[in-house]
Amino acid sequence: MDKVHNVNHKAGKVTVVGLGPGDVAYMTPVVKEAIEAADVVVGYKTYIDLIQPMLENKKVINNGMRREVERCQKAVEIAEEGHQVVLVSSGDPGIYGMAGILLEVKEEMGSNIDVDILPGITAVNAAASVLGAPLMHDFVVISLSDLLTDWEVIKRRIRCGGEGDFIVALYNPKSKGRTTQIEEAREILLQHRGEDTPVGIVRNAKRENQEMTITSLGNMLQHNIDMTTVVIIGNSNTYIKNGKMITPRGYKI
Amino acid sequence: MDKVHNVNHKAGKVTVVGLGPGDVAYMTPVVKEAIEAADVVVGYKTYIDLIQPMLENKKVINNGMRREVERCQKAVEIAEEGHQVVLVSSGDPGIYGMAGILLEVKEEMGSNIDVDILPGITAVNAAASVLGAPLMHDFVVISLSDLLTDWEVIKRRIRCGGEGDFIVALYNPKSKGRTTQIEEAREILLQHRGEDTPVGIVRNAKRENQEMTITSLGNMLQHNIDMTTVVIIGNSNTYIKNGKMITPRGYKI
Repeated sequence: MDKVHNVNHKAGKVTVVGLGPGDVAYMTPVVKEAIEAADVVVGYKTYIDLIQPMLENKKVINNGMRREVERCQKAVEIAEEGHQVVLVSSGDPGIYGMAGILLEVKEEMGSNIDVDILPGITAVNAAASVLGAPLMHDFVVISLSDLLTDWEVIKRRIRCGGEGDFIVALYNPKSKGRTTQIEEAREILLQHRGEDTPVGIVRNAKRENQEMTITSLGNMLQHNIDMTTVVIIGNSNTYIKNGKMITPRGYKI
Repeated sequence: MDKVHNVNHKAGKVTVVGLGPGDVAYMTPVVKEAIEAADVVVGYKTYIDLIQPMLENKKVINNGMRREVERCQKAVEIAEEGHQVVLVSSGDPGIYGMAGILLEVKEEMGSNIDVDILPGITAVNAAASVLGAPLMHDFVVISLSDLLTDWEVIKRRIRCGGEGDFIVALYNPKSKGRTTQIEEAREILLQHRGEDTPVGIVRNAKRENQEMTITSLGNMLQHNIDMTTVVIIGNSNTYIKNGKMITPRGYKI
């Protein structure tokens, strides 16, 4: 058998890995090993840059934002050729990340390659650890981006989060072109809880240029909120003490 | 100054760390470093056992289940003496873990010691990665344990999770003494979604003796569910393909 033939018959694989917040101190060893073992690494440029020192002697395929499907097709194609491909996601690839898109694309392409998914620390966990302990009870995670989801569906979910007295964590709260959703979300939640409900705002949680604010549902819009921000709105028991946002779990202290 | 005086004035600290699922391959480097730098490690026996090889030459204080408050008091007391204390939590200490209790206990004790919280991979992220990509859209996390929370509150939350068409992740679904909650949860969700809604059941996600089942809301109770299990119920778009549970995010594939 010639070399090309051999390559074609070696089992390729895509491993979708979560880098966590960005700082390698928060990346799990199993993800690091997967990157080291890969011969091709595919990802959005910003995330590729975060792991640049680990990419020597590897083929790197990066492209811009909003080209997720194309990136997944590329990853599957290369794995079909017999390569060990790592597809890079920030945070956890299973939470608004690349894991689902990769699986959907693989099925659409009729591919039988192996796929492995390695979780990472997602933004809401990182943000919570910076704020104190706001997520100690039942919570909802909602993305305010209406690029792929009808805004009416998102609004209903915010309402349900309010009605259920859940802690509410908001991803993608605001972007340059999308500014009213966070205002509407706040209005909806104010129908269920008071103006003094604690709110934590974390930009770049556990990575460079981290910023953290603890405020209230009444005052939250006075603070800087953008696409790199996670907003966590407390439930009816959440309180602030010595600069920490705490949701009690119910233990007798 | 004598030695004791010195010790008393050295700044003690409690670092609450998340071990992740249990396998050290899923523990972040920053958590490993914190454990290595500690002179005292406090935790529930089962979790202490997971990191035994890292505990040489350290004082270890472990105790049994349901003694969380006592464990936190101990950690604060020892830090007050000037020690670097690590308080160990499985998963993420900020999600039904030790972070909140430690902060509450510290405040109650009027202590001014520094507290640092280091997130970990929580069970729902680990379970999702085993199932495929079920958490790719908005989701709720609910603990079915009514030891510390009124069952009526939990039921309302399950209902809201159903009404909002959220993916619903259930922690502590069942224990030896608590068997009816998962049945009631299923009944409530069946009022909002069909019997054929995909359900993923993961025991010991990403640790020894991992077991994974993909089933449906109609059939889920026929499978083994206990305290080490996370149950993930899909939203109205979740589907099963080639043994993977996938919730589409809305991309055009």
